[in-house]
Amino acid sequence: MEKSSKTQKLEAIVAGHFPDLRHFLETYKDIHHNPELGTHEKRTSTIAYGHLKELGFETYEKIGAILKNGAGNTVLLRADMDALPILEKTGLPYESRKVFTDRDGKETPIMHACGHDMNVTNLMATATLLSQARSEWSGTLICIFQPNEENGAGAMAMIQDGLYDRIPTPDFCLAQHCDYRRSGNLAIRSGPCESAADSFLVTIHGHAGHASKPESCIDPIVIAAYVIVRLQTIVSRVVPPQETVVVTCGSIHGGDAHNNIPPSVQLKINIRTYNDDLRTKVPASMQRIIEAECDAAGAPQKPEIKRTHEYPLTDNDAKISTGLRSLFEQSFGKDHVEVMEQLAGSEDFPNLALPNKTPYVIWFQGATAVESYDEAAEKGEIDQLLQIQSDGFAPSADSTMRTGVRAFSLAALYYLISNEVANRASSTSKYKALIPSY
Amino acid sequence: MEKSSKTQKLEAIVAGHFPDLRHFLETYKDIHHNPELGTHEKRTSTIAYGHLKELGFETYEKIGAILKNGAGNTVLLRADMDALPILEKTGLPYESRKVFTDRDGKETPIMHACGHDMNVTNLMATATLLSQARSEWSGTLICIFQPNEENGAGAMAMIQDGLYDRIPTPDFCLAQHCDYRRSGNLAIRSGPCESAADSFLVTIHGHAGHASKPESCIDPIVIAAYVIVRLQTIVSRVVPPQETVVVTCGSIHGGDAHNNIPPSVQLKINIRTYNDDLRTKVPASMQRIIEAECDAAGAPQKPEIKRTHEYPLTDNDAKISTGLRSLFEQSFGKDHVEVMEQLAGSEDFPNLALPNKTPYVIWFQGATAVESYDEAAEKGEIDQLLQIQSDGFAPSADSTMRTGVRAFSLAALYYLISNEVANRASSTSKYKALIPSY
Amino acid sequence: MEKSSKTQKLEAIVAGHFPDLRHFLETYKDIHHNPELGTHEKRTSTIAYGHLKELGFETYEKIGAILKNGAGNTVLLRADMDALPILEKTGLPYESRKVFTDRDGKETPIMHACGHDMNVTNLMATATLLSQARSEWSGTLICIFQPNEENGAGAMAMIQDGLYDRIPTPDFCLAQHCDYRRSGNLAIRSGPCESAADSFLVTIHGHAGHASKPESCIDPIVIAAYVIVRLQTIVSRVVPPQETVVVTCGSIHGGDAHNNIPPSVQLKINIRTYNDDLRTKVPASMQRIIEAECDAAGAPQKPEIKRTHEYPLTDNDAKISTGLRSLFEQSFGKDHVEVMEQLAGSEDFPNLALPNKTPYVIWFQGATAVESYDEAAEKGEIDQLLQIQSDGFAPSADSTMRTGVRAFSLAALYYLISNEVANRASSTSKYKALIPSY
Amino acid sequence: MEKSSKTQKLEAIVAGHFPDLRHFLETYKDIHHNPELGTHEKRTSTIAYGHLKELGFETYEKIGAILKNGAGNTVLLRADMDALPILEKTGLPYESRKVFTDRDGKETPIMHACGHDMNVTNLMATATLLSQARSEWSGTLICIFQPNEENGAGAMAMIQDGLYDRIPTPDFCLAQHCDYRRSGNLAIRSGPCESAADSFLVTIHGHAGHASKPESCIDPIVIAAYVIVRLQTIVSRVVPPQETVVVTCGSIHGGDAHNNIPPSVQLKINIRTYNDDLRTKVPASMQRIIEAECDAAGAPQKPEIKRTHEYPLTDNDAKISTGLRSLFEQSFGKDHVEVMEQLAGSEDFPNLALPNKTPYVIWFQGATAVESYDEAAEKGEIDQLLQIQSDGFAPSADSTMRTGVRAFSLAALYYLISNEVANRASSTSKYKALIPSY
Repeated sequence: MEKSSKTQKLEAIVAGHFPDLRHFLETYKDIHHNPELGTHEKRTSTIAYGHLKELGFETYEKIGAILKNGAGNTVLLRADMDALPILEKTGLPYESRKVFTDRDGKETPIMHACGHDMNVTNLMATATLLSQARSEWSGTLICIFQPNEENGAGAMAMIQDGLYDRIPTPDFCLAQHCDYRRSGNLAIRSGPCESAADSFLVTIHGHAGHASKPESCIDPIVIAAYVIVRLQTIVSRVVPPQETVVVTCGSIHGGDAHNNIPPSVQLKINIRTYNDDLRTKVPASMQRIIEAECDAAGAPQKPEIKRTHEYPLTDNDAKISTGLRSLFEQSFGKDHVEVMEQLAGSEDFPNLALPNKTPYVIWFQGATAVESYDEAAEKGEIDQLLQIQSDGFAPSADSTMRTGVRAFSLAALYYLISNEVANRASSTSKYKALIPSY
Repeated sequence: MEKSSKTQKLEAIVAGHFPDLRHFLETYKDIHHNPELGTHEKRTSTIAYGHLKELGFETYEKIGAILKNGAGNTVLLRADMDALPILEKTGLPYESRKVFTDRDGKETPIMHACGHDMNVTNLMATATLLSQARSEWSGTLICIFQPNEENGAGAMAMIQDGLYDRIPTPDFCLAQHCDYRRSGNLAIRSGPCESAADSFLVTIHGHAGHASKPESCIDPIVIAAYVIVRLQTIVSRVVPPQETVVVTCGSIHGGDAHNNIPPSVQLKINIRTYNDDLRTKVPASMQRIIEAECDAAGAPQKPEIKRTHEYPLTDNDAKISTGLRSLFEQSFGKDHVEVMEQLAGSEDFPNLALPNKTPYVIWFQGATAVESYDEAAEKGEIDQLLQIQSDGFAPSADSTMRTGVRAFSLAALYYLISNEVANRASSTSKYKALIPSY
Repeated sequence: MEKSSKTQKLEAIVAGHFPDLRHFLETYKDIHHNPELGTHEKRTSTIAYGHLKELGFETYEKIGAILKNGAGNTVLLRADMDALPILEKTGLPYESRKVFTDRDGKETPIMHACGHDMNVTNLMATATLLSQARSEWSGTLICIFQPNEENGAGAMAMIQDGLYDRIPTPDFCLAQHCDYRRSGNLAIRSGPCESAADSFLVTIHGHAGHASKPESCIDPIVIAAYVIVRLQTIVSRVVPPQETVVVTCGSIHGGDAHNNIPPSVQLKINIRTYNDDLRTKVPASMQRIIEAECDAAGAPQKPEIKRTHEYPLTDNDAKISTGLRSLFEQSFGKDHVEVMEQLAGSEDFPNLALPNKTPYVIWFQGATAVESYDEAAEKGEIDQLLQIQSDGFAPSADSTMRTGVRAFSLAALYYLISNEVANRASSTSKYKALIPSY
Repeated sequence: MEKSSKTQKLEAIVAGHFPDLRHFLETYKDIHHNPELGTHEKRTSTIAYGHLKELGFETYEKIGAILKNGAGNTVLLRADMDALPILEKTGLPYESRKVFTDRDGKETPIMHACGHDMNVTNLMATATLLSQARSEWSGTLICIFQPNEENGAGAMAMIQDGLYDRIPTPDFCLAQHCDYRRSGNLAIRSGPCESAADSFLVTIHGHAGHASKPESCIDPIVIAAYVIVRLQTIVSRVVPPQETVVVTCGSIHGGDAHNNIPPSVQLKINIRTYNDDLRTKVPASMQRIIEAECDAAGAPQKPEIKRTHEYPLTDNDAKISTGLRSLFEQSFGKDHVEVMEQLAGSEDFPNLALPNKTPYVIWFQGATAVESYDEAAEKGEIDQLLQIQSDGFAPSADSTMRTGVRAFSLAALYYLISNEVANRASSTSKYKALIPSY
């Protein structure tokens, strides 16, 4: 593939200022060995922002780091910091042995099973490169190390804490995340690429009593069962067959004893959608079904439906996606840039972009060691490779970081050396205005 | 068992006037050979009322026959006349070969499978006995040959046609019906003994369309399925476990093609109850469930719920039951008078009594030949004896009629020789006032 | 009502030896104030058996007390001792403030909400009377203070510990229990009067995974919902409508997070039946449904169905019931002896009788103060009186004990002064032989 | 868009031999006025093949017409002939008034509501053009006028009748169909573009009886309801959310009377899938669910599951699609060539290609009058335009035919002037080998 002159220029900058990764690999192992759960990312935050402060960024811990470098675009780069409540089984020398103890004294082993340690060090190294290359670009660079992504709440919390009162409005928001793919490969997709996810805590109220006297009770376990059975029709009958929607009840709890009908049952329901229309319609169908099933049973009280989690739709900007795909294909080779499948999972990065209708893109980079990947590919066992969020997820650190820093830097520079104007109108999600409040 | 003097007196009257049954056995076989469906009982009616006219009754065909015989109680005796759409397989010499042809030319074989032919001839012979014995009692005797019992509509139609404008108000209503028991035996029960039965035609409206586009339809077959599944909770959760209630959906029809979602589905639902409270509550639960399931699906239109059949609760008067049980036990022997089980089936005879709150009793007499019955009893196969409404039901005519005429006459005379006052207050069914109209 | 000479004789004995109840009322209040949960009845047991030892009974704590008094019938009297995990709200001066602390430090308030304290002191006083009157009867008297009735396990545990290796085989087993009725009244019923109750812990196994990938999971919450929905058909379609059966799922637990499909769900199912046939058939239907629903979902593993509780059917011996009813009616007056309704609850007393096919009867005595009861009756609010197992259940101690001791003593003496032979063949429950093991 | 020299050459041939359409418009109106249902296409077939015979094709009625014209590719063009049982409401001067009378005398109005009349005349005119231009290409042209497409059976019937014993094996199979799009526009899609559709007649057997005695029956209506409710889980839980699958029960019939439980219920179930794997897995899930629900109810007999309809997946060959898209874009302009959405409907054309693994493509052409379409587009009401299979579907005949003949001719010539070799290996559907037989 022929390289455009812009690509050649970007590659020259990156090559000319590429940092020595040894230091960052040590930092990566240190963060991996010391994971922190969402809202507890103190140590990680100190390491990351400390480094950027040293590089000369204006640094506001818990907020972001800014490098103002003349006129031009404002580009926001984001990495997420939090780990997961999983007992690590990678067997790595720098394996986590950390345990989180909550207020009640309950202990939970924790681990970087989602590669946020890699995301963080990649951004630290990328900031180093861009800071050293500052004579070659002009504009404003913002680096955000975001807490609490795994609960879908960190980005929104930053916005609500007044993020954009303290930092400039970005023109472009970019994020990079690692996954099960072949280390050295990138994957990018235009448009809806990760699901919107809305979760609800539903309380169904019945009327309690003795198991032998159903006629003097309203049995909430029976109502809950009919609700779950009825919820299946949302995907099977309400949603257009060609649309991707998931409705899962992940938790049900009601009653203690075998010989009593309890007063209520609690359900946790998770809904995943890929467009605003269904994101409005599906929860409305859920609500209609739950209320109707309570009516059918003559429930003494309306059900309570409380939204508990809310991930935005990740809807990559078409123009940026196309631009970066072309850049990556020219620079890494077409064979190393995949068309990413639509992911079932969710991501809260768009919440950093939505308030200003900033166009954004998140892309993925492979973290599986080349030999392991190729062996799996030959056996047709790609789908058995360790996914993120599994207890054995262990990125091939060196090659993954090398690719990650180069891709992140190239992408940032793409907008920092040009005067390309952000197309805010293209930002798609009308969701905020549409979503009903329960 | 010792016989009271009243019993002795009644037995003497019956014995002194007992008719020659040969004639009535011929009539029985003739009616059996010439069955008529409900609302078509022309020939049977002519035979029965013709005979009573000859006996000297004031006779109004389609209404009743009255024998006024001085002061005293007015006693109404009722027999039902209609046959069933069943192809007879008794192999009797007088087996029916009759076929009913409806307006569309559709042919249906018909048969007296429920013993109404026996009920009719028993009443004809009983009227003969009582008419001949008229010097021994005083009061008014009303004999009613009722049409269309099998559809639960004949008695109500007579009332609506102004029955009690033409005949006197009875003080006691009595009916006798034959069944699978041992010929020669009687069975009587006090209180609720046959179910109230209410049937509904339910139309569930959806929105039709192509099978491949469920999202542009409201699928009424899916709604109907959830309705039926949900209706199970009425008996399992709403009704007190110790109460007898049945909710059956006997018919479901919707759609033609495999590749279309139809506009609507029709259900026929039958509800059986044994008290007024549940007779009100259960249909209300049914309605609530059907409406809620339509709501759950976002149906474009409310469901239609139309009452199609309505049998009253048969709730035998306690005082009459006790009196007749004692009379029958003294006269037939305790071994020949059973405590009748609560029957699952229904009967519209109470509709003749309810308008005037007349106390009433219906009892049953066995029709199965003694040898067949005893053989079955010895093998423990009583429950395999041919029931009424089966194509092989063939009463042992002679002994059954002998018992039937004697029992019916004794019971009528019991009130025709006494001045016992009817306790109208005891009449239980408050249903008419309670039932909601849909 | 005329009193037989036997009744007159029994009344004379009871009157001649009736104990001073003041002491027993103090004991009652003491036990009420110091309730003990099932399997922890140490203090209560010591008080009860200590008293009987003093009276001269051969006493084996945790087993029973025997008074051998010549030839004749062996009569077993039983009272149950355990309290309930309920916070008392009677406001009585001797209200319980006791809290039970389990091994994990969890605290549970406890209370005699089921009147077992009254049952115990009644039996203590009855034993006193019978012991003092020993010259007037001959035979063997066994008094059993049974632990752990509330869990349905105490009687069976005694049998399994070899009860009948240590005490003689009884000819008659009698028990008395207090309830919401009018103090001074008795209630007795022949035949099935309390339900058999069988409880099951059901584990449904699916295949866990992320909420967004149902296709790679088998969702056990969805299976459990279909199981519960399907279980409704047992009562609505499988059980004859005139039979009393309850199937209740009292507890369901599965999953923690909104965004995961859990590996399994646990249900607690309680089944109540009133005859052996259905006691076999209904759990078999339950098992068939659970297994079929797991099959329908392609579950990776069979469900586990474990029996956790097992109450026998309480099926009062017809002859004893008739005898005691007549005795009580003569002695207390017909107005004070009710025909007990079939109770929805369960009782494990029959387990003391079943091993030797001993005929048995349990009857109930009212404990509600006369004025409160009559006031409620006048208002038509009998059904709002405090039931056993409610936190305000407070027997009217004096009059209840007076009636209880008299009834218990009369009943025991009925068999201790006669040579009536126990009809072991009448013992009905074939259940043990029939019940399938899961 | 620049035109390749090949395109220029093809256009020159088409322009040089374009037939006078007036004759074909008359034929179109005649066929529209005289629709024939599937398997009854006698008149239409005679008109179409009669014309090709005149043109000099070797013609075998009911089979196909062949024009052998030297060495080169064999190209099969197909048009479908059958109409639908719909009462026409277009109000056109040549509106159909035809009624089909079946053997039982039942009358059904029929209409060309799916544009097969246009497809047929387009192919007649295309054959005329190609026959006249025969000096400009070499190879073999096969024209097939196929019966009975609407029942998905015509193509398979031709294969089973030995089609390929009589005509040469094609190298390329092409078909063109009209629809609701803007007249003048074409729409083409590579890969799976119409669903595989499999329909099943399911008979659920219960045990019949009276509505009041559910315990002596197995209620098939209740089983059927649970089956339908359970089938919803296939799409909601078994199928990956991103896959397009539909499971519809389009018809349910069971029972006549309100007061009887019927012996059986019949369901018609339609399954639509877009890949071989799910085409195997989804019917297997359906079968597993139906059988398990019958087991849950203790059904006396296994359900019967009979395949009644079977449409193949329409999986357009990637290479031909790409070639024709480019050709059409160059010739009609990029604005007039849409990327067709994946259609929910089905088509049996692939059955003509599958036996020889011939690569195939079907594309669509718009038939809605330009003004009507543009008006709807302006109002945002494209989705309210009349679809095929609606009673008002009335193609804008002249412009639609002009585009259709040009597109069909260009496409055929594309392969008749080249030596491009068909890539039979690319033919995707492995379905035939995979499908289980029920």
